[in-house]
Amino acid sequence: MMNMDSIFQEVKAASRDLALLDNEKINEVLLAVADVAIQQAPYILKENAKDLAKMDASDPMYDRLKLTQTRLEDITQGIRNVAKLPSPLGRVLKDVVRPNGIHLRRISVPFGVIGVIYEARPNVSFDVFSLCIKSGNACVLKGGSNADASNRAIVEIIHQALESQGVNPHVVELLPPGHESAAALLHATGYVDLIIPRGSNNLIQFARHNATVPVIETGAGICHTYFDEFGDLAKGRAIINNAKTRRVTVCNALDCVIVHQSRLKELPEIVSLLESSNVVIYADKAAYKALEGKYPAHLLEHAITESFGTEFLDYKMAIKTVDSFEEALNHIRANGSKHSESIITENEERAQRFLREVDAACVYVNVSTAFTDGGQFGLGAEIGISTQKLHARGPMGLEEITTYKWLIEGNGQIRKT
Amino acid sequence: MMNMDSIFQEVKAASRDLALLDNEKINEVLLAVADVAIQQAPYILKENAKDLAKMDASDPMYDRLKLTQTRLEDITQGIRNVAKLPSPLGRVLKDVVRPNGIHLRRISVPFGVIGVIYEARPNVSFDVFSLCIKSGNACVLKGGSNADASNRAIVEIIHQALESQGVNPHVVELLPPGHESAAALLHATGYVDLIIPRGSNNLIQFARHNATVPVIETGAGICHTYFDEFGDLAKGRAIINNAKTRRVTVCNALDCVIVHQSRLKELPEIVSLLESSNVVIYADKAAYKALEGKYPAHLLEHAITESFGTEFLDYKMAIKTVDSFEEALNHIRANGSKHSESIITENEERAQRFLREVDAACVYVNVSTAFTDGGQFGLGAEIGISTQKLHARGPMGLEEITTYKWLIEGNGQIRKT
Repeated sequence: MMNMDSIFQEVKAASRDLALLDNEKINEVLLAVADVAIQQAPYILKENAKDLAKMDASDPMYDRLKLTQTRLEDITQGIRNVAKLPSPLGRVLKDVVRPNGIHLRRISVPFGVIGVIYEARPNVSFDVFSLCIKSGNACVLKGGSNADASNRAIVEIIHQALESQGVNPHVVELLPPGHESAAALLHATGYVDLIIPRGSNNLIQFARHNATVPVIETGAGICHTYFDEFGDLAKGRAIINNAKTRRVTVCNALDCVIVHQSRLKELPEIVSLLESSNVVIYADKAAYKALEGKYPAHLLEHAITESFGTEFLDYKMAIKTVDSFEEALNHIRANGSKHSESIITENEERAQRFLREVDAACVYVNVSTAFTDGGQFGLGAEIGISTQKLHARGPMGLEEITTYKWLIEGNGQIRKT
Repeated sequence: MMNMDSIFQEVKAASRDLALLDNEKINEVLLAVADVAIQQAPYILKENAKDLAKMDASDPMYDRLKLTQTRLEDITQGIRNVAKLPSPLGRVLKDVVRPNGIHLRRISVPFGVIGVIYEARPNVSFDVFSLCIKSGNACVLKGGSNADASNRAIVEIIHQALESQGVNPHVVELLPPGHESAAALLHATGYVDLIIPRGSNNLIQFARHNATVPVIETGAGICHTYFDEFGDLAKGRAIINNAKTRRVTVCNALDCVIVHQSRLKELPEIVSLLESSNVVIYADKAAYKALEGKYPAHLLEHAITESFGTEFLDYKMAIKTVDSFEEALNHIRANGSKHSESIITENEERAQRFLREVDAACVYVNVSTAFTDGGQFGLGAEIGISTQKLHARGPMGLEEITTYKWLIEGNGQIRKT
């Protein structure tokens, strides 16, 4: 077994050096990484080709894995954009002088070392590195075996840039692919301060059940859009189409339309735009009846139990009919994953109740759930979308990968009671 | 095996009812609980006596377990104080209108259900309940078997008060003592949103290694005070005495004084106040030599490896001599638990470097670590002191047991790219 402790120790030590760099220096490093990545594009693409050669081009992963000159340019533009963002460090979150004269400040600081476990997308290596270094965090990357040659080339390039900048290269390290590395990372208590798993539900559940280091779960989104009794037809139709078909493989994509029974007669119109994307609809009895003969028969199926509470990640969608607003809330509660939920309504009271009573990271009124995204929220960048409630909820940008410490300055104060 | 799922389900359902109560109603409930606790004091004390009867009065736990009329009055005063605090809910953490017109707000909301695992102190049952309900959270309590009769009486009293107020009593439930309950709670994914273990290091490690629900670790504090080359003798002497002897069983108590070698000749004066509390000193070679004949021989011992990095929770303390400021930082890094660390110095540059480079929840300059406490920090109340970096660090008050959600309101916006 490889001794990964020595890697963790080096990264931990490097995180302390990193904490001493100012934002200006960090930005220079980011720009240097972007420059070297472009200079070394032929090398990165050559290594990427080795990974691609092992995969069938018809595999849906092939496209995610593939790098091109254009994609590399987009990626390095992303790195340059991160350099332009304000530093998330040193924000004064509280500042108070207590009656006894002690000066108390709560200040944002890096976590230290962040571990990220991901699958086949090599661009994640650049993204995670740039967000981590910008927030003063060292990082340990554990990529998928399919992308290993690409990831190794990328980290090699980053190391070159770091060395040219006189920065400890161990601020980023790549672990070998495989379960053994993942297990070591999940148990690297004392070295790694936070783990973010990105990828399939299996990966995330593996992390959740095995980690002793704190984990932020990302991922699974079972998203609903409720077309209320008071919903506007034009808005609802466009929102449902956008949330379902903009990109079907993302976690904020729509999985289930809930429709108030009073609007069943308009259901064919509500879902009419989905036909052109060949969206298969799994309709409950009432919805099926409403759609029969009005939505293409080869795209219309009867819903089964598994049609609800399922993240399709495909051109597929369920429809649930409800008799009341409360029944819609109950359906979301029972089937949602607390990610993104939307209501289509012109009734202000309904809107406010929905915002208040739905327990999800992002609750929408008359807006497509496609907006659950760090960039769309104005966070500037995103390292993942948290599906838990601890620390960060929804899109996580730079601020969300910092913690804080309390600084207390005084003049000899002791506690009397 | 008891079916604890049904308890978890009831608490989860009650948490939704609780989310609909406003702050005024919650405060009425808190005052009602305080009133009923006083009215029913004889019953609580009678049940507490049953627990005490099973324990040897010389056991150090006996005193923690014991309730008296005065202690109950203090506890209910604490509950009344929580009612006076501002609500931590509904705080607007971000509020922005995006260029496309969507109105985005980030608002503090309850976690939902918080599980707290603790040991022999029955007052914790009242404290946890009052902080949880004030922050809109239902709670599941898992107390120690030693305090079970007391805890059952307390929760019974709380249920009476809740019923009299027309509030779903399942907003607080007590699990039977024992590992089986703890294990069920740690795995109550979907029902419990957060677990806070309070107590021994064993308990906390058990939670950390077994939980699938997110955990905030509290507890172990291995705390240092570094008497710098430029430290003021009078300040340092008072701070060291206060940090060590104010209460030895608390997590912010001093465990190790680090002394710059240039100040060794003053070491007898620096620790002189500890003699009257019979503090046993485990001194390294240089410190031993400096203290020999000047600190009582029966209280002075040679440090061994285990003297450092140990949380004594007793009238015991180690002394480490260093040749430089950097060596002091290294000693803290290698031996501290990232809880509370203090420097005694009149040198501003040293002070600022210490604040910046020490990785701990609370970093002090010329102040006793005894101040690491929610009340002392002005948080109004405290549910525990986090020793991790995720979500909350250091003393946790009401704000720290809330999460947030994003509310997004619009007028039919869809995402184009």
